[in-house]
Amino acid sequence: MITNISQNKVFDGWHKQYSHDSATLNCNMRLAIYLPQSATSANPVPVLYWLSGLTCTDENFMQKAGAFRMASELGIAIVAPDTSPRGDDVADDEGYDLGKGAGFYVNATEAPWSRHYQMYDYVVKELPGIIENNFPVSGKKSIAGHSMGGHGALTVGLKNQQQYCSISAFSPITNPMRCPWGQKAFSAYLGNNTDNWKHYDACELLKASKSTLPILVDQGDADDFLEEQLKPEALIAAAQSQGTEIDSRIQQGYDHSYFFISSFIDDHLRFHAKHLGD
Amino acid sequence: MITNISQNKVFDGWHKQYSHDSATLNCNMRLAIYLPQSATSANPVPVLYWLSGLTCTDENFMQKAGAFRMASELGIAIVAPDTSPRGDDVADDEGYDLGKGAGFYVNATEAPWSRHYQMYDYVVKELPGIIENNFPVSGKKSIAGHSMGGHGALTVGLKNQQQYCSISAFSPITNPMRCPWGQKAFSAYLGNNTDNWKHYDACELLKASKSTLPILVDQGDADDFLEEQLKPEALIAAAQSQGTEIDSRIQQGYDHSYFFISSFIDDHLRFHAKHLGD
Repeated sequence: MITNISQNKVFDGWHKQYSHDSATLNCNMRLAIYLPQSATSANPVPVLYWLSGLTCTDENFMQKAGAFRMASELGIAIVAPDTSPRGDDVADDEGYDLGKGAGFYVNATEAPWSRHYQMYDYVVKELPGIIENNFPVSGKKSIAGHSMGGHGALTVGLKNQQQYCSISAFSPITNPMRCPWGQKAFSAYLGNNTDNWKHYDACELLKASKSTLPILVDQGDADDFLEEQLKPEALIAAAQSQGTEIDSRIQQGYDHSYFFISSFIDDHLRFHAKHLGD
Repeated sequence: MITNISQNKVFDGWHKQYSHDSATLNCNMRLAIYLPQSATSANPVPVLYWLSGLTCTDENFMQKAGAFRMASELGIAIVAPDTSPRGDDVADDEGYDLGKGAGFYVNATEAPWSRHYQMYDYVVKELPGIIENNFPVSGKKSIAGHSMGGHGALTVGLKNQQQYCSISAFSPITNPMRCPWGQKAFSAYLGNNTDNWKHYDACELLKASKSTLPILVDQGDADDFLEEQLKPEALIAAAQSQGTEIDSRIQQGYDHSYFFISSFIDDHLRFHAKHLGD
């Protein structure tokens, strides 16, 4: 059961927030959906799942990305889950880059995280079921995200290629095993055996096998996190090693913010609409 | 002198924040500007001034309105000042609707407010000077706003018709003398002589004389503040009493939020571009 929290009409469709008890995460969660006006039970629409970055909730993308004009025009629903389990009894850390707001879209195996931090299963299994049971959407899905959520979109999409029609990312953490954000999070959530980290690293997944799923990546060259954390060149090299094609674009002068995302979100929506319609 | 605080490339132009010492407000202030890529000293662009609502800063519109795609296309700069004086020594109130974040775009005459709360003069006189001295903008100006800022845009525009090319408002407080928000603020800032309130009330200004300035107003009919605080019908009646034409639109299902503003901001930008180009 899901409970409506808020609703706002926007570009003839509706932005709505809901809460629900997540069996996967063992806590109450909030999510947001944009439903274009064309979505009805007689006309179920495809869904783009959006995974947000560190410190975000369901609200950042919905309030700042400027995505609804094009989503309305293309007839695509957008679903934004939260970025971690939530609640007073959920383990946390003082840093912004571990614990609440920083779930990294993995299934934690280590205490104290494993009791709630099962974001991979939540995004891959529980969330689509909730959406498809409660809203006029078709089974067609694509996935996108930003930064930590770009890592999430790439890894979730690459590991579930039958489930998604396309993947896109803004400023993704491409190689979490080899950057400070990823190393901190993976050692906490997954322990010190780095063999277990490879299942959640887009570069490792692309080095292990070729993907035929369409992939679009945008990265600003004025992004403060570019060299230390994001490493777009590692993603390109990993993709090329097995012949996977990625449309990887460097956008001159753009940074890590939603100002950047808003400037190119229409391209991503058109990209997904094309592949959701195939 | 103004000091740059932040900059983000967006839709080929730049969003930038600055701080400056305001002589009018007797405190340090922050403002934001969007400069389209076409703005150069050889090609100065017109400016839309945006006045925000209660509790807002320069950031709400810039982050949530989704205005930059169209502003870039039309070649319009957008300037967003803060909604009140700021700083530890600035008088404040416990309510969200008086004091900081709630300057109401008036020149306060009453203690303790009068020392800093001179937002009318700041918006009308000091702010355009700062913008025109520091950025590649022409002297052409229009003004728009939301809620308290819609009141600000209407009153500032109507009182300075030679200075602005057009006025628009989302969900404006049309008749502050006759609604709780306005009565609380005006009695504090302006004292109990309601004759002094009329200078800052759009309905009173429209009843006093005809305006030929183009005016566009959008109001959602699902706005929680509609009947008690906003009173769009009062604005229409006041305008009609002297033959002033207002394009006043009721948008079905829309509320008071930036989701509403984002849905119609392109219309407002096109409206202002037309009159800024006349």
